Amino acid sequence: MTFKPMAIALVHHPVLDRRGDVVTSAVTNLDIHDLARLAATYNLARYYLVTPAVEQQLLASRIVEHWQKGAGASYNPDRRQALNSLRIMDNLDAALDDWRSLAGPESLAVLTGARHQDGIDYPDARTLATEYPVMLVFGTGHGLAPEVYASDRPCLAPVRAGQYNHLSVRTAAAIVIDRLIGEHGLVLPLL
Amino acid sequence: MTFKPMAIALVHHPVLDRRGDVVTSAVTNLDIHDLARLAATYNLARYYLVTPAVEQQLLASRIVEHWQKGAGASYNPDRRQALNSLRIMDNLDAALDDWRSLAGPESLAVLTGARHQDGIDYPDARTLATEYPVMLVFGTGHGLAPEVYASDRPCLAPVRAGQYNHLSVRTAAAIVIDRLIGEHGLVLPLL
Repeated sequence: MTFKPMAIALVHHPVLDRRGDVVTSAVTNLDIHDLARLAATYNLARYYLVTPAVEQQLLASRIVEHWQKGAGASYNPDRRQALNSLRIMDNLDAALDDWRSLAGPESLAVLTGARHQDGIDYPDARTLATEYPVMLVFGTGHGLAPEVYASDRPCLAPVRAGQYNHLSVRTAAAIVIDRLIGEHGLVLPLL
Repeated sequence: MTFKPMAIALVHHPVLDRRGDVVTSAVTNLDIHDLARLAATYNLARYYLVTPAVEQQLLASRIVEHWQKGAGASYNPDRRQALNSLRIMDNLDAALDDWRSLAGPESLAVLTGARHQDGIDYPDARTLATEYPVMLVFGTGHGLAPEVYASDRPCLAPVRAGQYNHLSVRTAAAIVIDRLIGEHGLVLPLL
């Protein structure tokens, strides 16, 4: 199975906190690395880190710079390579604009989440990803805010319809990406 | 597909560091929570945190206690529930002994790792997990030490045979568990 080029976006705003309020979540060092390594492993072309908070953008830039140009670059070349795909963006629209300019105007943002009951199943999502350059969108905190879902963007079915459904965004993203691409799927690089 | 009861073990010793030396890695707060939430989501009966370091065991106990009995229990009941399955063990043999006493003497430890080239593929692993109570073994740091693989324990094929193969143990565990059990697999609870 051959997929079009693919990207992920990790959204820090607008997301919900545990009380259900819309907030801007903090960028975390571990999310940066875990998702960058996922992106590298599955040959994803871009990892968009989305936050409007300038000081959080600076923090993320400093982390990336440490591993790409600072002492970390020689200490751990695997991290350096993984972070090549990372781009810091103000908001989701800006990320999608960038992805469209890179992968083509037909590119699609596909949302993920644990709270909704329906959504595109994985066979259909795989078909979609062979036809369009997809940007998978993940929410931090307690998930993407309702206003993000209110758009007409397609949304994947939750990972698991069990009684307990509170995965970290890192592990959820890993499962979603692996379900889509799997062991044998080939994701086309951007030229 | 109905699986026998299943467990995971996260091993902090013996594992390799980046230079290939055998070390005891540090317990991390995030690994505790991410894997506990994974275990709860997929109905795994036990999450064994394996470390011989007494001060690390104490740290892990204090983290668990905070979320189960301390201020965390009312702040975040999801975490409390997820941590029910966690047990702290001195070594892998002790974890397997406990799992055998709980799930039956036929229980199997199944290793995971990124460095070896072959291993059991997922269809075969699923069959195994429908016949035996499996304890999946994950290594922290740069993976389980060779002495662990030297045993005659079965070992899963690496997640992805690409050029870049450096997932975090959190995301690798998520992918392995989801590949085994998936969306529709039913894991039997322990009685």
